[in-house]
Amino acid sequence: MAGICNTDLEILGGYHAFRGTPGHEFVGEVAGLNTGSRALRQKWLGQRVCGEINVSCSGYGYKPRCDLCRRGLERHCSRRSVLGIVNHDGAFAEYLTLPLENLHMVPSNVSDEQAVFVEPLAAACEILDQLNIAEFQQAAVLGDGKLAQLIARVLQSALGRQGARGAGSASRGVVLYGKHADKLALARSAGIATRKVRGDRTGPGRSRVRYRLLVEATGSPTGLALAEQLTEPRGTLVLKSTFHGAAPVETWPIVVNELTVLGSRCGPFGKAMALLSSGQVDPKPLITRTFPLSAAPAAIRFAGRRSALKVLLLNR
Amino acid sequence: MAGICNTDLEILGGYHAFRGTPGHEFVGEVAGLNTGSRALRQKWLGQRVCGEINVSCSGYGYKPRCDLCRRGLERHCSRRSVLGIVNHDGAFAEYLTLPLENLHMVPSNVSDEQAVFVEPLAAACEILDQLNIAEFQQAAVLGDGKLAQLIARVLQSALGRQGARGAGSASRGVVLYGKHADKLALARSAGIATRKVRGDRTGPGRSRVRYRLLVEATGSPTGLALAEQLTEPRGTLVLKSTFHGAAPVETWPIVVNELTVLGSRCGPFGKAMALLSSGQVDPKPLITRTFPLSAAPAAIRFAGRRSALKVLLLNR
Repeated sequence: MAGICNTDLEILGGYHAFRGTPGHEFVGEVAGLNTGSRALRQKWLGQRVCGEINVSCSGYGYKPRCDLCRRGLERHCSRRSVLGIVNHDGAFAEYLTLPLENLHMVPSNVSDEQAVFVEPLAAACEILDQLNIAEFQQAAVLGDGKLAQLIARVLQSALGRQGARGAGSASRGVVLYGKHADKLALARSAGIATRKVRGDRTGPGRSRVRYRLLVEATGSPTGLALAEQLTEPRGTLVLKSTFHGAAPVETWPIVVNELTVLGSRCGPFGKAMALLSSGQVDPKPLITRTFPLSAAPAAIRFAGRRSALKVLLLNR
Repeated sequence: MAGICNTDLEILGGYHAFRGTPGHEFVGEVAGLNTGSRALRQKWLGQRVCGEINVSCSGYGYKPRCDLCRRGLERHCSRRSVLGIVNHDGAFAEYLTLPLENLHMVPSNVSDEQAVFVEPLAAACEILDQLNIAEFQQAAVLGDGKLAQLIARVLQSALGRQGARGAGSASRGVVLYGKHADKLALARSAGIATRKVRGDRTGPGRSRVRYRLLVEATGSPTGLALAEQLTEPRGTLVLKSTFHGAAPVETWPIVVNELTVLGSRCGPFGKAMALLSSGQVDPKPLITRTFPLSAAPAAIRFAGRRSALKVLLLNR
């Protein structure tokens, strides 16, 4: 089973140099190993797995050959290939290959429909690895799409655990800003507060609300300008949108308000799998529709609709 | 004596809403106090001082009235006025007013020509307050203008002290990237390595050089794109340019390389004064020309030339 991500739509729209099979969100079964080790074959063959998408120069058991891998930053290896994105055929297929060290077994209490979210959920968890969430009582997420919804759930879970230990407060938890009533309703059903954005404005009377922690996940070129307005001086603005193409941006608010802007990409699969297994995050309500792999072109067109959230491909 | 900053040129060009007397870099003498306290009059009258430019809601001895001031972030007070920039007449005049708590006495071994640089030098020192410079061996500064030159000297001084304690290395110290041969030569005469930028490229063969710490201080809308290219994955990119106006920016490199982008504005006057007093930084070679205050319009036109660095106004 594979998930369709906005990056896949960008790739198919020609915005990346990639040629090959797209797809980088998947859950599958290990069908073969190109190793003679009986122990490894026994451990892995037939296992249900998800897979990290960056294949570094230290992948396949090689010693790290670049400075970034030697420093433990394999996900930033300058020679890396990336499943379905850079020089590596992806998951919209019956089979794919990855190094064993990229694989994570899926616990039996996590369904395929949940496990297929591990990759984007790990990207959401990356924020928890990049900053000390205990310093914040509240966070805002800008965007109501697939990734924004996952990020809001991950932050809500992290802030909620904190809140349970501390005193309750109205200004605790996550506020999600979005343009689509149905997507905002979906967030509210997960206990997340929401605000409607009209045009690029958060509405009169709300324009002075600012957050110490804000995550920009609109996937839109206009997101950053609004994000700058909603982040308070010396606050932290996490950038999650990876769309290609230049947008006109005023950078002086970052300077004048001394914001910390954190770029944030792929994250820890283990943490994401634990959130699924413990039931703290359930991404299933984000599934809009599942298509058979044979109908991939129709599925991809469908995923491009504004109303769609996660669209899945299933290979039985 | 007052210094002309690019922000003054922007104000005079109509890019800010400010109306009044511009100018926020100055050294002057205390001519009067609106207090009856004899002790304060004795302490301050006739003293040579520089002054911090942000006047917060806790200025003039008031108790902090806003959340940011209560948190000690007076330079970010949302009700602040700013000398010569926001609702507060500035230093291109015979007299100006500031709260006493904004003033810093100038040590006798610091000349007027040095002291007039305290404000921009403090802005350069802000970087030392925002990050732990001991984590870095090398830094690059993008830009060869007034502020970039000061930043390079401050970082060179901080990294140099470190280097003296550690092992010597060719990859220690500051590299300044600029477009102007004469300005690059000035940096080299202060012991700073330089690289020539042609157009928006750092030249073939150099395109793969990347830095863990890079400061963007070009004052130009095209600076950020080059800065993104020159910062290594998980590196820190300090933004110092405060020009107004939107520039087309691709933000995906910040996300994909997980850069930390730090906005950086006003800084600690005490640290700047200490760098001048100890002789660790001498900004005097950055003075292009000094005009009498009566010739301010001509001085401002002159300061707008590409070849000009710091232009001063002197009121005798």
